[in-house]
Amino acid sequence: MSTSTRPRNALYAQSGGVTPVINASAWGVIDAVRQHPERIGSLFLARNGILGALNEALIDAATLTDAQLASLKTTPAGAFGSCRHKLKKDAEFDRLVALFEAHDIGYFFYNGGGDSADTCLKVAELARSRGLDLTAVHVPKTIDNDLPLTDCSPGFGSVAKYIATSVREAGLDIASMAPTSTKVFIMEVMGRHAGWTAAAAGLAAANADTPPHLILVPEIAFDEARFIAAVSQTVERVGYCVVVASEGIRDGEGRFLAESGATDAFGHAQLGGVAPVLANLVKAKLGAKVHWAVPDYLQRASRHIASATDLEQAIAVGQAAVGFALEGKRSVMAAIVRDQATPYRWHIAAVPLADVANREKTLPRDYLDAEGYRLTEAGREYFAPLIRGEAFPPFVDGMPALPDWRFDNVTKRLVPFKD
Amino acid sequence: MSTSTRPRNALYAQSGGVTPVINASAWGVIDAVRQHPERIGSLFLARNGILGALNEALIDAATLTDAQLASLKTTPAGAFGSCRHKLKKDAEFDRLVALFEAHDIGYFFYNGGGDSADTCLKVAELARSRGLDLTAVHVPKTIDNDLPLTDCSPGFGSVAKYIATSVREAGLDIASMAPTSTKVFIMEVMGRHAGWTAAAAGLAAANADTPPHLILVPEIAFDEARFIAAVSQTVERVGYCVVVASEGIRDGEGRFLAESGATDAFGHAQLGGVAPVLANLVKAKLGAKVHWAVPDYLQRASRHIASATDLEQAIAVGQAAVGFALEGKRSVMAAIVRDQATPYRWHIAAVPLADVANREKTLPRDYLDAEGYRLTEAGREYFAPLIRGEAFPPFVDGMPALPDWRFDNVTKRLVPFKD
Repeated sequence: MSTSTRPRNALYAQSGGVTPVINASAWGVIDAVRQHPERIGSLFLARNGILGALNEALIDAATLTDAQLASLKTTPAGAFGSCRHKLKKDAEFDRLVALFEAHDIGYFFYNGGGDSADTCLKVAELARSRGLDLTAVHVPKTIDNDLPLTDCSPGFGSVAKYIATSVREAGLDIASMAPTSTKVFIMEVMGRHAGWTAAAAGLAAANADTPPHLILVPEIAFDEARFIAAVSQTVERVGYCVVVASEGIRDGEGRFLAESGATDAFGHAQLGGVAPVLANLVKAKLGAKVHWAVPDYLQRASRHIASATDLEQAIAVGQAAVGFALEGKRSVMAAIVRDQATPYRWHIAAVPLADVANREKTLPRDYLDAEGYRLTEAGREYFAPLIRGEAFPPFVDGMPALPDWRFDNVTKRLVPFKD
Repeated sequence: MSTSTRPRNALYAQSGGVTPVINASAWGVIDAVRQHPERIGSLFLARNGILGALNEALIDAATLTDAQLASLKTTPAGAFGSCRHKLKKDAEFDRLVALFEAHDIGYFFYNGGGDSADTCLKVAELARSRGLDLTAVHVPKTIDNDLPLTDCSPGFGSVAKYIATSVREAGLDIASMAPTSTKVFIMEVMGRHAGWTAAAAGLAAANADTPPHLILVPEIAFDEARFIAAVSQTVERVGYCVVVASEGIRDGEGRFLAESGATDAFGHAQLGGVAPVLANLVKAKLGAKVHWAVPDYLQRASRHIASATDLEQAIAVGQAAVGFALEGKRSVMAAIVRDQATPYRWHIAAVPLADVANREKTLPRDYLDAEGYRLTEAGREYFAPLIRGEAFPPFVDGMPALPDWRFDNVTKRLVPFKD
């Protein structure tokens, strides 16, 4: 137990892809740390995640203005930056230990997904092996929702709400025009390995005839003939067909459809985009007028339509992480536990990082029907509470307020890092 | 002047692509008609635009429930459907005249863009030549904002707000991750012939270093070398580059970039999508990591982030159209007149349809800077008021409410139309 009376400092870093509410978790960490000045001295925020730790580019949370603090709860993306960088080399781990020592870091809060959970655990183990008194706690986030041992991952609920809202709105548009215009609409959503985001789109459907009519997820192999038949039957029955496809869907041989050899006018391989591939397929096979959408980062940054539930959970995991650290819980993740689905009740619990790291939670098969195309009641019960509640950001001049995220770095104590 | 004391009936039809607020104009027409029972008897709403008129698929506005009426102000897309169908054949015009006679239509309200304005005028002229006492008034709408003689077109402000919001949010995302991830982000927006929607994205930029950094519009020929140099310089200066491109940009020879010969794995010509074409170009020339987004119908149906100003104007043109008709103004459009930019003040005026039909208003060159890439102060002054104010729809279970748009048709009086 970290029962020393001397206040130690803390380090917070965001890692991997950002989300509409990742900064709210930072707010939760900052808020909780401020309530324990007797236990935690300074809270340092790493710029661009672990890179900021390696390069000693740190912000002292005490220097944030009230406006900057408030912006954390209302602004998407990473206020302090994030990075895609997996710690691998010994030199990097050594440097981290040096940083912890130089700044008297006793607490390490790492906000990220599965890879980061693994890094968080390794850093904690290394520090301990070097005799450092470091408490590492993982703060979960990922729009992919593929972290195990937590009911959901902060960030996911807001993206799900964006997707369900978008497909409902666009679906009404297609329905209005279908007799003389677009018959098939294909919307591609993020999700390289798991179909959580695509499946959540099913919340928009009130019944079998309202969009989305067909959901395609990576967990179920894409069968061209079966898909085309389903599109054709839906157009026949409803007059139009709305499809939501995960970017990571694969054929029976495991090949990504988005990498199926498409080339552009310059002869270059086509970048991503499973939606245009499916659109061309439908057009070729059925001759129907097709439109497609790829919201890409728009979904991941969609703070303007964040889920209030998701926002609340993002704050709660940040606050709880600090609480767990102060209770002496080491190498844990602040996980969301579902107590009850309707009405949704949940609490935060500490789960061992060793059980989290490098495990991907895929979509349960029974969340989609036998055909694999539509959300079941089991799936609806899981997803429904996660998108509930609105938490609109402040608008200035008709747009979500642009934050002022200019921060000063703390004085460096180490020589520059050379890898 | 239509001073007859016998109440005549009215016909309302939506035409062409729908918008986030086109139904609000329908509400305006219905609301104004209800206030004049002594002048207008029944108001018929054509299903799927002029097709409903041809097929005598009409809804009596008096049968709409209060909930249905309320949904018109809060739901995107066409409650009664719309269509892409340009009246051309004599048989179609003859049929319309027969419908007007059968249902004693004295007022025709046509809600559409430039093509529809032309149709509205032709219908009015034909009816008059056949001795019918018909007053036709055009209700403007188009997200393309290319109608002349009106400050803006209802629908545009909401799409502009969606685009400015989306590029601001996604821009923050790119900025967070740029050191180790995506360097260039390209967002494609609607606008086949005019760059209004793309240019409005410039509202999101607080200065030359905030997104969007480069705006591409159809009015300015795309110059590959100049574009690549601008992207490269922006990445050099800012660390990343956000591009907003109109779907309709063309090269120096007038060829659409989106139709530049791209083919997919099946050998089919690639459907639309200028964003992936630009993304591949940037990737090939600069080797940078690129992401791209094509929101497509999501922007046109984005009622969840509608502009309150746009919504107010959409209602006002509908109400004013009825007023103009009752004042005996024939073959006019209810146009928005800007009295003052800051604070924005406007009123509705009747402009002759003959001056509106078949004229496209393109983006003034001075709304973009000398390079053609960034919004100028003149452009900002024009666009800024149009996206002001929020008008969130009612949310149910975390999503914008799904309307119940089941309507009964009125009894037919004509034999089926055979073209």
